[in-house]
Amino acid sequence: MTQTQNTPAKVKARLGENNYGKAEVNLMKVNRTAERHEIRELQVRVAMTGDFDAAHTQGDNTDLIATDTVRNTIYGLAKEGFQGSPEEFGQELLAHFVKTGPRVTGGFVEFTEYLWERIPVGGEGHNHSFARQMPQRTGRVESEDGQTFKVTSGIENLYVLKTTESGWANYLLNERFTTLPETHERLMASFVTARWEYGAGQVDYDDVWQRVYRQIQETFTDHYSPSLQNTLFLMGQAVLTVCPEISRIWFRMPNKHHLQYNLERFGLENNLEIFHVDPEPYGLMEGWVERAE
Amino acid sequence: MTQTQNTPAKVKARLGENNYGKAEVNLMKVNRTAERHEIRELQVRVAMTGDFDAAHTQGDNTDLIATDTVRNTIYGLAKEGFQGSPEEFGQELLAHFVKTGPRVTGGFVEFTEYLWERIPVGGEGHNHSFARQMPQRTGRVESEDGQTFKVTSGIENLYVLKTTESGWANYLLNERFTTLPETHERLMASFVTARWEYGAGQVDYDDVWQRVYRQIQETFTDHYSPSLQNTLFLMGQAVLTVCPEISRIWFRMPNKHHLQYNLERFGLENNLEIFHVDPEPYGLMEGWVERAE
Amino acid sequence: MTQTQNTPAKVKARLGENNYGKAEVNLMKVNRTAERHEIRELQVRVAMTGDFDAAHTQGDNTDLIATDTVRNTIYGLAKEGFQGSPEEFGQELLAHFVKTGPRVTGGFVEFTEYLWERIPVGGEGHNHSFARQMPQRTGRVESEDGQTFKVTSGIENLYVLKTTESGWANYLLNERFTTLPETHERLMASFVTARWEYGAGQVDYDDVWQRVYRQIQETFTDHYSPSLQNTLFLMGQAVLTVCPEISRIWFRMPNKHHLQYNLERFGLENNLEIFHVDPEPYGLMEGWVERAE
Amino acid sequence: MTQTQNTPAKVKARLGENNYGKAEVNLMKVNRTAERHEIRELQVRVAMTGDFDAAHTQGDNTDLIATDTVRNTIYGLAKEGFQGSPEEFGQELLAHFVKTGPRVTGGFVEFTEYLWERIPVGGEGHNHSFARQMPQRTGRVESEDGQTFKVTSGIENLYVLKTTESGWANYLLNERFTTLPETHERLMASFVTARWEYGAGQVDYDDVWQRVYRQIQETFTDHYSPSLQNTLFLMGQAVLTVCPEISRIWFRMPNKHHLQYNLERFGLENNLEIFHVDPEPYGLMEGWVERAE
Repeated sequence: MTQTQNTPAKVKARLGENNYGKAEVNLMKVNRTAERHEIRELQVRVAMTGDFDAAHTQGDNTDLIATDTVRNTIYGLAKEGFQGSPEEFGQELLAHFVKTGPRVTGGFVEFTEYLWERIPVGGEGHNHSFARQMPQRTGRVESEDGQTFKVTSGIENLYVLKTTESGWANYLLNERFTTLPETHERLMASFVTARWEYGAGQVDYDDVWQRVYRQIQETFTDHYSPSLQNTLFLMGQAVLTVCPEISRIWFRMPNKHHLQYNLERFGLENNLEIFHVDPEPYGLMEGWVERAE
Repeated sequence: MTQTQNTPAKVKARLGENNYGKAEVNLMKVNRTAERHEIRELQVRVAMTGDFDAAHTQGDNTDLIATDTVRNTIYGLAKEGFQGSPEEFGQELLAHFVKTGPRVTGGFVEFTEYLWERIPVGGEGHNHSFARQMPQRTGRVESEDGQTFKVTSGIENLYVLKTTESGWANYLLNERFTTLPETHERLMASFVTARWEYGAGQVDYDDVWQRVYRQIQETFTDHYSPSLQNTLFLMGQAVLTVCPEISRIWFRMPNKHHLQYNLERFGLENNLEIFHVDPEPYGLMEGWVERAE
Repeated sequence: MTQTQNTPAKVKARLGENNYGKAEVNLMKVNRTAERHEIRELQVRVAMTGDFDAAHTQGDNTDLIATDTVRNTIYGLAKEGFQGSPEEFGQELLAHFVKTGPRVTGGFVEFTEYLWERIPVGGEGHNHSFARQMPQRTGRVESEDGQTFKVTSGIENLYVLKTTESGWANYLLNERFTTLPETHERLMASFVTARWEYGAGQVDYDDVWQRVYRQIQETFTDHYSPSLQNTLFLMGQAVLTVCPEISRIWFRMPNKHHLQYNLERFGLENNLEIFHVDPEPYGLMEGWVERAE
Repeated sequence: MTQTQNTPAKVKARLGENNYGKAEVNLMKVNRTAERHEIRELQVRVAMTGDFDAAHTQGDNTDLIATDTVRNTIYGLAKEGFQGSPEEFGQELLAHFVKTGPRVTGGFVEFTEYLWERIPVGGEGHNHSFARQMPQRTGRVESEDGQTFKVTSGIENLYVLKTTESGWANYLLNERFTTLPETHERLMASFVTARWEYGAGQVDYDDVWQRVYRQIQETFTDHYSPSLQNTLFLMGQAVLTVCPEISRIWFRMPNKHHLQYNLERFGLENNLEIFHVDPEPYGLMEGWVERAE
């Protein structure tokens, strides 16, 4: 029935760490109980872990939850649950799949929340009309038993830039491949990704997110930056200060280079006025900032 | 030197309409004369037209402006000029290339302006720190002589949504492939692209853009929409009303479908609460709205 | 019911050129009549033109074809028709909508065909297993009456590169912003987009496409290129030679710059060996090549 | 100098796991020693680890390698080294940075190799002209000391599809949110990502990659697939069989759903002929296949 060919005898193999589920489930929930409607839009991935050996090695699907069922469940539980934050909704989903799937013991949920602001009309946000914003809220909920959860929250697509108060100097200069001159005045820009974990106790995830989002931007403005690394650390420290709920925070901060274009060749001065916004490559800094005690 | 092969005798061919230049030139200009810095970021394409026959048909590049020179010129003229709007900068560029290029008679400039807002600190926008916004400003300047110009301005990436006050009914129902039920209550969303042309007279392009941007959003909120087509027309009419400078305006409005997920199968009611945000396909409406007299 | 505000009296406006329909309809058709299956995958946009004034200006949808119906029709007619090329299928679709829509007088269909090759097993292509290729086939069919059609076909995502046999010299050198040195040996690369129109008579669209696709690549290899413009012209002339069905052909050819990295600073020679593949900006050439008589 | 505001006293914070370097460095190396040129194109990321505390917490950059230097080094070492596979080049890079950077103790290199095939002319691949292919080769090299390395290789963007010989049945059917019917005949498609690790001993990375690339495709064709999970396992087992160098292999396989379009509503049969290619959501399977002894 199928085409065959000569192949050596198969080696013995076993299944290692694995998961399956549904990804890019795009969900919008509208709360229209009051005249002022509320909306939340999520892109959700659900991945289940457990004993899926028979399916992989024998082609035996007995007791497996279909990924189509995962999709139905996300929409169904969004109706019955999802009264609060997406982080809590993720916990509801994992608890459900562990309870419902005979072979499911745990898993993880990842989401991206697209943010909408009310359209301003006459100085006020409209009751039922919205415009999409650029930054995104992210999150991940993991569980090994469907009852206890590890929650991570995050921010993506936050693009910030400052036109002064940053530099890069005192680095390793006497090295074969080093040609970059030092500077104490430059343009600095980054496309910030952040993720953070929580300590013990109850958390108002929506409120924490707003505080982190605001603090990252404010710290970006409030100091002379000798390096993106130092700004990363100061942002982390400031977030830990205003959010006691957070145990540690991670940043991924590309240094989106804005290069002074060489205009001297044409008899023109360029005193930090005219820049080429270089799409690649970019410096890339990643790091955790943690509580010291 | 090169590999050859048998081919039939070449037919006679001639060069038709053509242009060349440089695309995706990413430029940022910073005005730091006052403590409160101003920034503008453009992605620019310059295309030149003229008598380029010899280059195409004979491989004779005499008097051609190199595209590398086009890039240098964009940055150089941004330093000397670009005091006002990107639309005026586009005119400066075209005038320059017609004057400088012995074979250039005209061309067009297209730009996308990335928009930045000041980061709010203590209720006020910061002096030199900015966050990128989602919508983009676009424009195109054309000229056949380097002295007179046709200007088009536009908006892209404006994603708006309303949770009520829209419907779709009374269309052709008795047709073989028609299965969609009528509705007078739905969620409506669109990713608006707009482009407009100007009448005679001086124009403050920056000010017009702000008025159009605000008006499109306000009109989106202010009526019951029987169709995206009708909303498109009302938006156009409202823009023509608040912007006497504009002669006509074009919209491209995809209908980003939000489909009520079928929850009845699970014994759940779905009263416009739980939606699947469908990535494709989308209804797509395009049209010009023009002054009637 | 909706929030209102003070606005000036509305100006008189009228609807200009317009169209509507459905975009990004993703269709796969499988022919399984023989053991050796055939597949075709299209992304389709259908746009209808006609008298849609009442819908836009009055919100009166009478006799309008719903865009959901357009989608159903594409899949339905793909079952009943689409026996040959996508260009012919586009004609079937337009003829249908003009016949069925009381207000529809014409329109256009645009498609992208994703190309699949049979997976090689034992030196032969498999009967029912396929791998996606990178280049794409495109097309557009227009009609003003649903009976006569203008057909354009095309190629996208064809990325070609040669490591020798190209240069750029003899251009305008004595100019303020010109710093680029001449070269007779460089690396040349382009991401080719082509579109062509047909003369009178019957056309085997699938066969023409294969000839154009092959010829563009062969011509790219067979000459010393003094400029991308000259290569564009030679490609066009060669296509017109091997395809008498084609009346004229258009190319969009970005010059994807590969810049020799400056290694002399580190005491290293770089004899066209080490390149930075620059993502932006790129030279951009567009032009038609037409039959001379 | 900067705007300030009232903030609580800063908490004590420390730097956790971190790295920095340069990303999206686009490199092409041409070997033109023979008439038949060879090319390799890589996008490279280099991340260094070590003692970067002072930079983060004190703004003290002493002895730090600038990311601009990282870029220069990648191009410089590509000239002097990079004689073999990208995996070996990654090792050369890490060894260099540990040797050169006073604070660097290790790091990782990630690369994507873009693949080019010779353009066929007269039945043979051309000497110096190439066309880009769709699949990509990936890799990652890690080191904690600059002397010993962990290498992972991979494949991305391999999109495969079969029109028969797959199904999905015997799963958990009696469940509230399960509506999907069983099937023993469907269309199955996946956008395969693979990554594998190596056992002890010398490895010819280029040769292994070719074997894995070919085997994944062949196994995809050679069996009735009761689930993507089973196909994933069989692919892994087959790769381990033909590549003794590989210790284990991981796959990420989205199930790109092709849904039979409901044509019965229009009186048309759809016997696995007409499909909607659904862009989202998709089933997503991830798993390792390892040697059993």
